[in-house]
Amino acid sequence: MTSGFPVKTKQKAVIVNKQKTDILCSHFADKLFVIVTQFSKVGNLIELTRDVAVDDDFTPTRPSYSTKVLMGRDEPLMHVLAKNVLGKLDIKKPVLLALALKDESPQTVALLSEEIKGMM
Amino acid sequence: MTSGFPVKTKQKAVIVNKQKTDILCSHFADKLFVIVTQFSKVGNLIELTRDVAVDDDFTPTRPSYSTKVLMGRDEPLMHVLAKNVLGKLDIKKPVLLALALKDESPQTVALLSEEIKGMM
Repeated sequence: MTSGFPVKTKQKAVIVNKQKTDILCSHFADKLFVIVTQFSKVGNLIELTRDVAVDDDFTPTRPSYSTKVLMGRDEPLMHVLAKNVLGKLDIKKPVLLALALKDESPQTVALLSEEIKGMM
Repeated sequence: MTSGFPVKTKQKAVIVNKQKTDILCSHFADKLFVIVTQFSKVGNLIELTRDVAVDDDFTPTRPSYSTKVLMGRDEPLMHVLAKNVLGKLDIKKPVLLALALKDESPQTVALLSEEIKGMM
């Protein structure tokens, strides 16, 4: 009846700027699903789709994403946070990001991005 | 640096009506997150909120949910499928359901609902 779960999932708990943070990454065929929570809550749910550069001469220094808040606080800060959390990653698939942060400072977000990068 | 992941997560792979199905349930503080996939894809994402009965004399035989398609096919069948997948469960929290089914027959959905019930 039972066999191996084929969706590759990694999870860890880290302390980032004194905040206990749970990170979970699930690699689905159509999407990368990332949960980053400091409340044990799903919190906000954001869909990120990678933008395609149409100009061959233009090589962006970092990937650019379009963001859509599916659930939670649809405010500019949330879009910025989502983009920055994934800023250091080179992901081709659309990303579904659940984000619930106590500490939304740029320093923490940069550290979180490093942690997620290490799980790819 | 690392400690236990506090979000309780259960996952299993089952064969339901000859279809290999992956089921994952994560118990967050604010939400129950359930993934049911026969494609290794996230597919459709539906938010279910339990309705509150205002009439004390009226005791429904099964819980009723309001559904909202956050991502994917926003069509009547998807709302019905989501409600039926969770139909046998008595869940107080809002549910975030990712649903990607090859076989959307009522028989399969009833079997899936039993499988999820066994994971609660």
